[in-house]
Amino acid sequence: MNVISILGSTGSIGCNTLKVVEHLQDEFCVVALGAGKNTEKLAEQIVRFKPELVAVENETCAEELLRKISSFKFQIPKIVVGEQGLIEVATHDAAQTVVSATVGAIGFVPTLRALEAGKRVALANKETLVMAGELMTKAARENKAEILPVDSEHNALHQCLRGESRKEVKRLILTASGGPFRNKSKQEIENATREEALNHPTWTMGDKITIDSATLMNKGLEVIEARWLFDFAADEISVIVHPQSIVHSLAEMIDGSIIAQIGVTDMKHAIQYALTYPTRKPNCLPPLDFAQLAQLTFEEPDLEKFPCLALAYKALKTGGTMPATLNAANEIAVQAFLDGKVRLSDVAKIIESVMNEHESQAVSSLEIILKTDALARKQAIMKLENLEKTASAN
Amino acid sequence: MNVISILGSTGSIGCNTLKVVEHLQDEFCVVALGAGKNTEKLAEQIVRFKPELVAVENETCAEELLRKISSFKFQIPKIVVGEQGLIEVATHDAAQTVVSATVGAIGFVPTLRALEAGKRVALANKETLVMAGELMTKAARENKAEILPVDSEHNALHQCLRGESRKEVKRLILTASGGPFRNKSKQEIENATREEALNHPTWTMGDKITIDSATLMNKGLEVIEARWLFDFAADEISVIVHPQSIVHSLAEMIDGSIIAQIGVTDMKHAIQYALTYPTRKPNCLPPLDFAQLAQLTFEEPDLEKFPCLALAYKALKTGGTMPATLNAANEIAVQAFLDGKVRLSDVAKIIESVMNEHESQAVSSLEIILKTDALARKQAIMKLENLEKTASAN
Repeated sequence: MNVISILGSTGSIGCNTLKVVEHLQDEFCVVALGAGKNTEKLAEQIVRFKPELVAVENETCAEELLRKISSFKFQIPKIVVGEQGLIEVATHDAAQTVVSATVGAIGFVPTLRALEAGKRVALANKETLVMAGELMTKAARENKAEILPVDSEHNALHQCLRGESRKEVKRLILTASGGPFRNKSKQEIENATREEALNHPTWTMGDKITIDSATLMNKGLEVIEARWLFDFAADEISVIVHPQSIVHSLAEMIDGSIIAQIGVTDMKHAIQYALTYPTRKPNCLPPLDFAQLAQLTFEEPDLEKFPCLALAYKALKTGGTMPATLNAANEIAVQAFLDGKVRLSDVAKIIESVMNEHESQAVSSLEIILKTDALARKQAIMKLENLEKTASAN
Repeated sequence: MNVISILGSTGSIGCNTLKVVEHLQDEFCVVALGAGKNTEKLAEQIVRFKPELVAVENETCAEELLRKISSFKFQIPKIVVGEQGLIEVATHDAAQTVVSATVGAIGFVPTLRALEAGKRVALANKETLVMAGELMTKAARENKAEILPVDSEHNALHQCLRGESRKEVKRLILTASGGPFRNKSKQEIENATREEALNHPTWTMGDKITIDSATLMNKGLEVIEARWLFDFAADEISVIVHPQSIVHSLAEMIDGSIIAQIGVTDMKHAIQYALTYPTRKPNCLPPLDFAQLAQLTFEEPDLEKFPCLALAYKALKTGGTMPATLNAANEIAVQAFLDGKVRLSDVAKIIESVMNEHESQAVSSLEIILKTDALARKQAIMKLENLEKTASAN
């Protein structure tokens, strides 16, 4: 029996992870769940999976949750709160695998602690590697902890590289759906509404990552993530737009051969792969309909229309704390867009402006990352306020 | 230094193998070459690669070759003839790898001898496995000899399966270009000329295999070959038509994941892979042009229009000596088509008629295979003569 903890259990990846656990119930059990404010869904999950430990965002959520579950006829789990609570979930003694699926920077420290505790981490929280890939991979190496990617592209690359030797792989090629604005003009993207940006053509995901997909920042973050997961330089990682999202990524070998992973667009596949690796198990998904393969297309990404992708490459090439700065500024800017405070095109402008003022440092400690993150957020908020002032002045 | 022998050195695969050897000249040398009647090309190869041993079809060819090379200023190689000569090439003491690239059944016994001598066999001669997959794979197992496929589809599958466990692979999917008649009507195929049939859209190959590609028999033989190379049953091997010939084949896992190998349409890739496995080396080919990936299409094969593919599945399911019968009848029928004696649609008719009269036996020995092969050829020739009589009577 493989015992797992989930950070971000009420989000999209968290819920899909629990579906995989249900499908493979003879092989997996859940010991701890970490969520945010969604106590309604967490209560349902507690009834179904009976974890020993659950974490919520704060004391108010904890009380709310307790009210919802106190009448249950089974052992009530221990309830913990905040980042410290998530760390308890991530380092629970019994957990062998920790699914890291919170959105944004909140999962950073808990995921690091899981790796330090030698757990296998099934990583969906890409910001973790974007912010602190060096620290994370070092912690994994030193504690013999494995990082298994849950992002469909990196999961695909993990599959493509299974039988290969690193030095015989020339290049990683991440596929991008191109998002909802692939065929839109620069101006249409500039004026896109929240609803248009949230209308992703192929994947159903959380709001933040859906906006990142619309700006191609998601692909940029994935390039940085790939750098750390697989140890490739920025110029050894390419992005290709593949609107059908059926080829999940490709690896090019030094002999010119390209290995591709193809599959359904359902995160349960990648989640199950990460949980059961190195074995594969039959899954609960319908097989790929070969009619879907009828026509697959590929095209170069347009960096003019999608400046966020270029910014991510720039941050990766600069290195040090620059990717953490990019990530923090992006989180603030995307939230502002979701809140209706800025236009979609302002997202790249805010990030670029914060990056321009940032002087990159080596990532020698957790503190530097956290300081960088906090500073970049503060600066992004300032840029945002300036934009709002300018807008209201016009 | 890896020492190699080549069976069929003057054919398409043989010449490409020598190009790969030239490209990797610090790693490979050639000790023996087996050819047929093309003494002109063989003489050139002797000058360039200075093998110790060469085989030609008969004494006349041997004398012709000797005249061509006797004035050379280096050690003249030993010249041997006939099947026994090819066996000497295949089992040369110094050879570690034997490239089996003769066309048709002539390579059968020499390849078996190479496996019995424990050599790695880079196998391009698919008839060998079609006729006697059971004997060949048994010889390989018992003598710890490896069979590395050179056919682009099987080579692709070998790459797709590198990191996988057999029991976690659900299905092999061989791609077929569809040949020159993919979009032709049944009647157009029936009346196709030799030139139309030899005009393959994506691959440049020898005549026999090009005709096999036009009838899809080549894909049928590959299905049988895949059965023996990878140990899959007939209903676990599918064929999908992919006119661009860029995805060389795919493997479907039990978790629904599909791994595909993609590359240039040049046999040198597969040859080099088979020679250098398990390592990969930079090759002499231009990298895949990603513009070629712009649009990839896939469709089901039409078994009505291409009855040879259905016949091959039928032979595989029947098992025993039936695939050898299919193969022998096909060789005779294709040669008759190339000689202008029958129509393309007669190829399947001749094969089916020979198969219908054949009672399949277990493949317990080399003799049974050779007897089956001889008998099927004789019967195919009879069918052919009957067809000719009918045609001239009309």
